[in-house]
Amino acid sequence: VRGYAGSSAGVAILDTGISNIQGVVRFIQVSPSSCIIDGTIDGLQPGEELKLAVHECGDLSQGCASVGDVYDPSQGGDLGPIQVSNTGRSLFKKENSRLQLSNIIGRALVVSSNDRRIICGIIARSAGLFENPKTICAC
Amino acid sequence: VRGYAGSSAGVAILDTGISNIQGVVRFIQVSPSSCIIDGTIDGLQPGEELKLAVHECGDLSQGCASVGDVYDPSQGGDLGPIQVSNTGRSLFKKENSRLQLSNIIGRALVVSSNDRRIICGIIARSAGLFENPKTICAC
Ligand SMILES: [Zn+2]
Ligand SMILES: [Zn+2]
Repeated sequence: VRGYAGSSAGVAILDTGISNIQGVVRFIQVSPSSCIIDGTIDGLQPGEELKLAVHECGDLSQGCASVGDVYDPSQGGDLGPIQVSNTGRSLFKKENSRLQLSNIIGRALVVSSNDRRIICGIIARSAGLFENPKTICAC
Repeated sequence: VRGYAGSSAGVAILDTGISNIQGVVRFIQVSPSSCIIDGTIDGLQPGEELKLAVHECGDLSQGCASVGDVYDPSQGGDLGPIQVSNTGRSLFKKENSRLQLSNIIGRALVVSSNDRRIICGIIARSAGLFENPKTICAC
């Protein structure tokens, strides 16, 4: 079941790349013109400014190198900068009006530092926000 | 660019689950009524018969346990049995007339042994079969 009742959600587990960095980012399409992107990434260099972007493919066979270029920025592929705290954590919540979750499912989410891809993961379908965890998943 | 000129392809890297098992499965939608599923999985128990299926979610936050049930079998979610050789490798090529690659991107591919999920991975968008690797990826 899809729709805007909380059932359109995605998740990217960032664990491909530099081995001590790890993160989880959730995507929720709350309306046709609003996708909320919410994440926590640990193991980063304190105080750094990083770049978050959707890339064209989800093919991690060569790690973050095989995911292609940034997904069409006019479709919201460039998610802008994220900041790292002095503990090496980046905690962020963004809203994007151009991104359509259905167009980015199966692509990769990549964090870059000065155009060097440091960590990435596939954007996967997840159970909806308000789905009862005891019911059968219908993402 | 999408279409049936070889550009509609997916890939699942199976590396979540039992640590010594690993595989790669490619999906190619060659026509609206034919999806080719081609894979190699190593580290399996020689001679075993396993079950291959698409599951509802691609959420691997709890490993293969968080991917939900088998994706609607009427949509081709149940991919049937696969055989393991006496070297512990499963090499297979299947054709499925019900599966639509666009409906399964972002979900998980799971290999089970007697209903125990032994290995899984997210079905990601990949560059097309005949895409020139020097051109910008447009999956
Ligand atoms: Zn689900
Ligand atoms: Zn591509």
